[in-house]
Amino acid sequence: MIEYKFVDGGMSVVQGMKSSGIHGGLKKQKKDFAIIYSEVEAVAAGVFTKNAVKAAPVLVTEEHLKVSNGFCRAIIVNSANANACTGKLGFENAKEMTKITAEELHIEPQKVLVSSTGVVGVQLPMDIVSQGIKKACATVLTGNSSSDAAEAIMTTDTFPKEAAVEMEVGGKIVRIGGIAKGSGMIHPNMATMLSFITTDVAISPGVLQEALLEAVDETFNMISVDGDTSTNDMVLVLANGLAGNKPITEKNADYDAFKKALSALSFKLSELVVRDGEGATKFITVKVLNAPSIEDARKAARSVTTSSLVKTAIFGEDANWGRVMVAVGYSGAVLNPNIVDMYIESNAGKEQMMKDGMGLAFSEENARKILEQKDISLIVDLNMGVFEATAWTCDFSYDYVKINADYRS
Amino acid sequence: MIEYKFVDGGMSVVQGMKSSGIHGGLKKQKKDFAIIYSEVEAVAAGVFTKNAVKAAPVLVTEEHLKVSNGFCRAIIVNSANANACTGKLGFENAKEMTKITAEELHIEPQKVLVSSTGVVGVQLPMDIVSQGIKKACATVLTGNSSSDAAEAIMTTDTFPKEAAVEMEVGGKIVRIGGIAKGSGMIHPNMATMLSFITTDVAISPGVLQEALLEAVDETFNMISVDGDTSTNDMVLVLANGLAGNKPITEKNADYDAFKKALSALSFKLSELVVRDGEGATKFITVKVLNAPSIEDARKAARSVTTSSLVKTAIFGEDANWGRVMVAVGYSGAVLNPNIVDMYIESNAGKEQMMKDGMGLAFSEENARKILEQKDISLIVDLNMGVFEATAWTCDFSYDYVKINADYRS
Repeated sequence: MIEYKFVDGGMSVVQGMKSSGIHGGLKKQKKDFAIIYSEVEAVAAGVFTKNAVKAAPVLVTEEHLKVSNGFCRAIIVNSANANACTGKLGFENAKEMTKITAEELHIEPQKVLVSSTGVVGVQLPMDIVSQGIKKACATVLTGNSSSDAAEAIMTTDTFPKEAAVEMEVGGKIVRIGGIAKGSGMIHPNMATMLSFITTDVAISPGVLQEALLEAVDETFNMISVDGDTSTNDMVLVLANGLAGNKPITEKNADYDAFKKALSALSFKLSELVVRDGEGATKFITVKVLNAPSIEDARKAARSVTTSSLVKTAIFGEDANWGRVMVAVGYSGAVLNPNIVDMYIESNAGKEQMMKDGMGLAFSEENARKILEQKDISLIVDLNMGVFEATAWTCDFSYDYVKINADYRS
Repeated sequence: MIEYKFVDGGMSVVQGMKSSGIHGGLKKQKKDFAIIYSEVEAVAAGVFTKNAVKAAPVLVTEEHLKVSNGFCRAIIVNSANANACTGKLGFENAKEMTKITAEELHIEPQKVLVSSTGVVGVQLPMDIVSQGIKKACATVLTGNSSSDAAEAIMTTDTFPKEAAVEMEVGGKIVRIGGIAKGSGMIHPNMATMLSFITTDVAISPGVLQEALLEAVDETFNMISVDGDTSTNDMVLVLANGLAGNKPITEKNADYDAFKKALSALSFKLSELVVRDGEGATKFITVKVLNAPSIEDARKAARSVTTSSLVKTAIFGEDANWGRVMVAVGYSGAVLNPNIVDMYIESNAGKEQMMKDGMGLAFSEENARKILEQKDISLIVDLNMGVFEATAWTCDFSYDYVKINADYRS
């Protein structure tokens, strides 16, 4: 049985969901305002940054989700300015963004969610913002372009990121589409990662929130470390029910089908974010096998993906597996160093680097061939339990430093 | 009253303590074995890596400190090979290193401490190691060179690091000398940091251990994050009592005088390690003021010093203070984002970047002048309590990636 399949079109495949992206003037020439609009009432859910410093749009969106009881109509997003560390005025400006959007779309302000990404600590120029929002709303009422929206939320991203999946839920075709941005992936804990997902599934607010949390934990959170996020990170989902399936109100088979597809979509978007990592030349998958708990597996996998020394070694195509072991060692995961095995793998083959915590006399030539590939897997077997986790990252190149040494200026 | 003063000579200033460094053949041409030898019985103390994966020499040294009840005579160190992830054979080889040293110096093996730094996961070539140790012992019995020892423990370090201080304790002149290595400071949690300190103070083992812990917490641990250390990190101190002071057996005024000098020496060595950070062009001091607890102050300061985005911004001389605030936000420190102030400072002046959690319209020209200097301070005032902490790091340049992309090969 095919559980779900990827389709083209991003958010445009979802019935009754429209989106657009336009140039409003925060950037010199590129698109900088995106809007997502549901023609009918939609159930909304969100996951937000755990940073103690939350940007104004995060605070406003959390509030609106609450006061609207999880029923929303639109998401307004700007890039180029994060509206973070902007105090009371920043909060009022984020509120004003929802108000202008609501007026243009003839809906209630608390049914509008708001998101921003870009430079921290600069107030939004509200005249430009106001014009930009009006233009975006006019466009979304007369057209529909998921790819324009994907483009408008970019900052240092080098390509727009969108994906869509389709599946059957209770005999009805359900579609999920999404866009994402975020490319500062070397230190995922610092990059602003935004993703907006729309679907026509019929589902209740609490259950949608649950499905989103589960999907994010396995995907976005394995590229963007939990609790170590930027001021603006968020993932939002709107579900308008137009697929006509029997509403999902509990964790049944329909829930499972939907959640599996949502996770697949989230993974695809996460993968695109990693592949566009600042200066990235490689896509690195870190699998931790046979850990004593899921938490230990995740800790160990994440620790390897955030190690600058591992990432520079992979950039250099150097089989420096010792650095992987060091990162596993300081991850806080429960492990016995004397029984750990390690492998590297790619299209060019697989080579065991370590057995029982000790280095093996592996073939340097094979290792080099494996590491020459673009997609590399590092596999760490703790040999201690039955839990596993996967985390993803990119390598660490000269260009990362170049991009980040003068991002603001 | 002058409490202590820095003097030249490193460990050579300490009575009855001898050291040497020689080329034994683990490196092609450079020195790779260091030995430190106390002519009389010495009290020993140590602080070790908290990585779950501990290198063999760490395990052996911890054991020897215990079985010798903290009375030791010598420290043998090799560079180029970390003897980590080397299993049972690695442990036996570390033991053998202490045995060979003990035989050459006519002392008991458990009174010899051992340390290694270099590549992980490769067994030591014991024929070369044996010859190297014999040569080092022969040299130390006939001469004394702290600077040769400092050179012999280097890996990617670009200069040897040594320092010495002198003070009065109970009317007697006491001297402390030390050497250190470690330059992978971009991600301090990965660098191997070693330091060996000798002193002629008379002190009891428990009190020496306490003084070392306190000094390390304020200095080495603020460049090398606690719990996130390499497989081999250690700081050892030998105190032989030849200064003739009344032995320090409790936390009295003599203890305070000694501890203050030990901290000053440890800071000096830490500073040298940071200044030699891989690819470093700037020395960055992060001060967190008015935190609700010392732990919060330390968490916030360390978080800023380990942020790749802060470090690349400083390399780019870009006043991107938002990244500092983001790193403070995800540090886990208790704070109220709406009352945080921030400043940058250097020889060229001081500029406030943020007040009450909001960006100020600062002078870009002044900021640029401040950031053009080699030594930069970032000052974060949490305005919430009375505790403060300082952490140190270097910037993040192209050369860091270059050095680490092919360190092993």
